[in-house]
Amino acid sequence: MSRFLSERHRNLTPYDSSGEHVEARIKLNTNECPFPPSPKAMARAAEAAHHLEVYPDPECRALTAKAAELLGVRPEELLFTNGSDEILSFIFLAFCDAGRPAAFPEITYSFYEVLAGLYGVPCRTVPLQPDLSLRPEDCVMPGAGALFIANPNSPTGLVLTIPEVEKIIGGNPDSIVVIDEAYIDFGPDLRAGSCVPLIHQYENLIVTQTFSKSRSMAGARLGFGVACADLTRDLRAIRDSVGPYNVSAMTQAAGLGALEDEDYTRANCRAICEARAFTAEGLRTLGFEVIDSVTNFLLARHPKIGGQELALTLKEQGILIRSYGAPALRPYVRISIGTHEQMQALLDALMEVLSKRAP
Amino acid sequence: MSRFLSERHRNLTPYDSSGEHVEARIKLNTNECPFPPSPKAMARAAEAAHHLEVYPDPECRALTAKAAELLGVRPEELLFTNGSDEILSFIFLAFCDAGRPAAFPEITYSFYEVLAGLYGVPCRTVPLQPDLSLRPEDCVMPGAGALFIANPNSPTGLVLTIPEVEKIIGGNPDSIVVIDEAYIDFGPDLRAGSCVPLIHQYENLIVTQTFSKSRSMAGARLGFGVACADLTRDLRAIRDSVGPYNVSAMTQAAGLGALEDEDYTRANCRAICEARAFTAEGLRTLGFEVIDSVTNFLLARHPKIGGQELALTLKEQGILIRSYGAPALRPYVRISIGTHEQMQALLDALMEVLSKRAP
Repeated sequence: MSRFLSERHRNLTPYDSSGEHVEARIKLNTNECPFPPSPKAMARAAEAAHHLEVYPDPECRALTAKAAELLGVRPEELLFTNGSDEILSFIFLAFCDAGRPAAFPEITYSFYEVLAGLYGVPCRTVPLQPDLSLRPEDCVMPGAGALFIANPNSPTGLVLTIPEVEKIIGGNPDSIVVIDEAYIDFGPDLRAGSCVPLIHQYENLIVTQTFSKSRSMAGARLGFGVACADLTRDLRAIRDSVGPYNVSAMTQAAGLGALEDEDYTRANCRAICEARAFTAEGLRTLGFEVIDSVTNFLLARHPKIGGQELALTLKEQGILIRSYGAPALRPYVRISIGTHEQMQALLDALMEVLSKRAP
Repeated sequence: MSRFLSERHRNLTPYDSSGEHVEARIKLNTNECPFPPSPKAMARAAEAAHHLEVYPDPECRALTAKAAELLGVRPEELLFTNGSDEILSFIFLAFCDAGRPAAFPEITYSFYEVLAGLYGVPCRTVPLQPDLSLRPEDCVMPGAGALFIANPNSPTGLVLTIPEVEKIIGGNPDSIVVIDEAYIDFGPDLRAGSCVPLIHQYENLIVTQTFSKSRSMAGARLGFGVACADLTRDLRAIRDSVGPYNVSAMTQAAGLGALEDEDYTRANCRAICEARAFTAEGLRTLGFEVIDSVTNFLLARHPKIGGQELALTLKEQGILIRSYGAPALRPYVRISIGTHEQMQALLDALMEVLSKRAP
């Protein structure tokens, strides 16, 4: 740290992405989609690259209109951002401060805590049950600025039902409740479980989603928030203060192309769900305990080998999976779901690793 | 504003970009480049669109290596961001706070004040001379977190020499001095006037640049900061806390393509400089007072017509130029430099407007 850094950052703990970008034969550590983006997304992006000399539309009008139609909301209820991390950042800036804490489950997307640290927002955590599930009745957080619920949760893969989410929203009438639906498209009914329709009932609800997972656009950086117009107006004011041109013209175009090809997304999600079932069964056959997941990843543990040791052993074979330092997660590995072939290769490698260990 | 918005934002004044995105025959209001991006930038972006399923490289390694080579700095001294607005935002977050004000000239890029408002940073302004020039001796700001100097300045188009900039840096040894070189490529010696080499002499200097102007990539959102490694380490910690994946893979690729085609950029800059000289002469012939500019815009005023009236009159004819509400700038219009043909059309329109007015 330089001597110029503001004193409020003396204990800053940035997100560490350094382990995420290692070259590997099979990369199952960051919940990316194994399929390329839709050809329509590629074509629209390439076309947009010819007109980069002008600033992008801050309101992402074409993209917003299409997304609003698909989601059943009004365009003013939507705000697109540079990845869904940016909408989360805007939510912290808008609704949390030193006197209005952020709250989130003790095990969840680690970025909530990072953002809180950056902006000097105190944190409260919601305890999980021994099986890592979240009880809505534990989520009452009076005085919080915002409560962040990843649903499905990461890295557990567990999901709350819509009535459970409504219980959380109703239990926190004076706080923003953020339902982070990064993984919603991999559920059993392909998005029927989304809370987006609830924004018309609850003035304190923000639903966030991303194009990084089901739409194979992690590299393009596109996410959004959906909420009643009062809340999106606040978030837009933050956006216009951080920089109104936050989503590049190519990313807007790619996003529009992806939304014009929903069949492609649905087919990919179905393939992921099939590969997930195949992988879960294979893991269980190998002696893993696997948490049932409605996402594009599985959280699993094996009685014979800890998470970090397992991840390291596989890395030596060119396969990346995710392990954790937090005590409650140390037994686990999180495995992103790739293609059927990738998952077969993973299972083969695991069988070999386990066969070499003492019974 | 919703009842949930943090009280510290009660007086938030976001940047208003609403007037910037009007359809027009000739758009000379946001200092965009009239030429498309380099074909190499387009080709690299289109290629990157095929691989969006993986997260982008947070360190932008290929782009950073090429830029470091061209700028004569080390890769770790560079940090790429989602437009140069984002590096400015990171600088505010890192080095300014409630007790460490931001300082900038009373007339300059309006976004510095917007960011200060968002982050609750007090502002100090440096007075300008009646001819809108900045005296280095007025720029001593003890206690400031960061002093922002757009060089060349916008909207004046005036530039400080390197010895003048050094006087400012040396006069503020305990503050960060940001030299915002958004328009540096349009100078008489095509970037020889850049302060980038000074980062190896001054531990408190950050130079920022953008691909939005000379490289015709406003739509792609790409900017960067250059500073000693101690400062870029601080800025990287902020970046990793806001979200490490801030620059899309397509934008990184387009930026690399642009840097591989410096001849294209230089030819475009020369064309802009020629069109600027042609426009300045034409404006003076029409009775305008024109400030000599080393940028891709001209600040000018006419004794017969105020800035806002003139901009409105031209808008009715499909030509957008920029006017200002701030008292010191009300007589002026800022005219971005387009193609020779666009500038001829502007001069023709101005001649007609002025000919209709009483002598």
